[in-house]
Amino acid sequence: MLDWTSATKTLQNASQILVVSHVNPDGDAIGSTLAVGNMVESLGIPVTLVNESPIPDKIASLPGAEKIQFPSQVSERFAVIIAVDAADISRIGNCQQLFADNPTIINIDHHATNDYFGTINVVKSDAAATVEILYDWAEYLKISISKQLATVLYAGLLTDTGGFRYSNTTSHTLRIAANLLDLGVASYELADRLLETISTSYLEQLKDSLATIQIDLDGKVAYLTSMEEDNEGLVNFARNIEGVDVGVLFRPKDEHHIKVSLRSRQLIDVSQIALSLGGGGHARAAGCTIEGTMDEAIEVVIQKLKAAFEGVNE
Amino acid sequence: MLDWTSATKTLQNASQILVVSHVNPDGDAIGSTLAVGNMVESLGIPVTLVNESPIPDKIASLPGAEKIQFPSQVSERFAVIIAVDAADISRIGNCQQLFADNPTIINIDHHATNDYFGTINVVKSDAAATVEILYDWAEYLKISISKQLATVLYAGLLTDTGGFRYSNTTSHTLRIAANLLDLGVASYELADRLLETISTSYLEQLKDSLATIQIDLDGKVAYLTSMEEDNEGLVNFARNIEGVDVGVLFRPKDEHHIKVSLRSRQLIDVSQIALSLGGGGHARAAGCTIEGTMDEAIEVVIQKLKAAFEGVNE
Repeated sequence: MLDWTSATKTLQNASQILVVSHVNPDGDAIGSTLAVGNMVESLGIPVTLVNESPIPDKIASLPGAEKIQFPSQVSERFAVIIAVDAADISRIGNCQQLFADNPTIINIDHHATNDYFGTINVVKSDAAATVEILYDWAEYLKISISKQLATVLYAGLLTDTGGFRYSNTTSHTLRIAANLLDLGVASYELADRLLETISTSYLEQLKDSLATIQIDLDGKVAYLTSMEEDNEGLVNFARNIEGVDVGVLFRPKDEHHIKVSLRSRQLIDVSQIALSLGGGGHARAAGCTIEGTMDEAIEVVIQKLKAAFEGVNE
Repeated sequence: MLDWTSATKTLQNASQILVVSHVNPDGDAIGSTLAVGNMVESLGIPVTLVNESPIPDKIASLPGAEKIQFPSQVSERFAVIIAVDAADISRIGNCQQLFADNPTIINIDHHATNDYFGTINVVKSDAAATVEILYDWAEYLKISISKQLATVLYAGLLTDTGGFRYSNTTSHTLRIAANLLDLGVASYELADRLLETISTSYLEQLKDSLATIQIDLDGKVAYLTSMEEDNEGLVNFARNIEGVDVGVLFRPKDEHHIKVSLRSRQLIDVSQIALSLGGGGHARAAGCTIEGTMDEAIEVVIQKLKAAFEGVNE
């Protein structure tokens, strides 16, 4: 459902706008926040950008990111809110404290699980990223896309498609990316910073975690452990091994709980494994938390996966 | 120089065609070989595809790759040859033994260093990959691009741009990629197989090599060592560390020589370092071989880099 008419009308009649996105923001959340900020400003409407969480270093270098505030830094209350890349209202965390009574919420998102929490909903689940929807809105609004706007849009595309590698990448995604390059985006530098750069602490973790890799179930499953929270992408080293279908990362959450991240290539719907263990997610990427020791968590997940592979082979 | 008129005339008058590419082929070499093979066949002309080297496993799964032969398997001699992705004739190795006397060679390539060795030269150094030039030729020839042809073209784009991440990626590259997706390319599967998958032997190497990473010159240089030949991409783990500009991989070539691979982000033109040590390459990726022990090679390269960084800071 793409209600551009209502969204545009609400936007154009607003005296000021609050833009919010999900906690623990990724490149699409911040890219979308900055893109909407840029678009609203170009229409001459005052805009305030907030996020509950600190912005990760890599993303914080996007142009304009310094304008994003914590809700505690903002004293006004807002009657018109644009929420981007948030599947439900709880995802924006304590940004809700900035809402006036009965606010008008424009919900712009690409998650299939979006629950249409907005007053106006612009939800397109086949968009690779929320920025892809915002590009279309910018075209609809006939906004001239500056290099800065193009850059934050491109950043969202890059990060949510893993550099145009994931299955959400469509020809529309690539054509938008091409148009953004023509507007001056330094795509190489963005890809280098957002996708390639690793911190020294991540490197240490990578060394430690790779040393723990185990291959099981006749080479179809690989798993590894990590002691740190900043473990983005580590699970892919397990999943990416030739012949492996499911990669799993185990991390102690606290003394009695293990956090489990699952990634699959093709055969196993890992959201079903996660669901059966009290978690959730997508067919190719899911997660859950298991009570018990590391060894117990590994045992439980491997047994679930074993049964799942037996189901596939039948 | 894009001499499509002559190339097309020669192609259409040929009774049979030999397609060759460079030794130790990468995705663009094989993608281009298969693309030309497909295009020539679709014009009803018999075609023979050869390469001196075995095709790496990942690339060998491309559709039609089983048709590529070693020169020793071919008894005919050819009067019309299409050479793809080869900067000079020596790059095709012993494929030259299949040439008839005074052959007509169509040289299709994107390397800036191409020496125009062909009878007809179609060289476009701002193309991200040779397949990008071949896509344009297919359009010029009004060939209907099948899913199979689209797949091998996309494979060349993906591998030569590092998944649209390198600075050779242009909006033309992305628009071609978009058009190829519309023709049915399973881009996610290709990216997964060609860019993401790692072999268990590579994983072992990665573990061993990461353990050797050293950071030097105030964090601007990182280097690591590898004992194996199959070390594609390892050097990037050094280059990709936050704050690092130059990553270096050292590998013993034989008892008395160390092979050196250099990658840089921005500040240092590593081709100059490599040149000064008897090697060569590009500003961002270069290599050389140094006589001596591992420790000696590291010492020499670090000193060269130290001087280069001092030059930058002046």
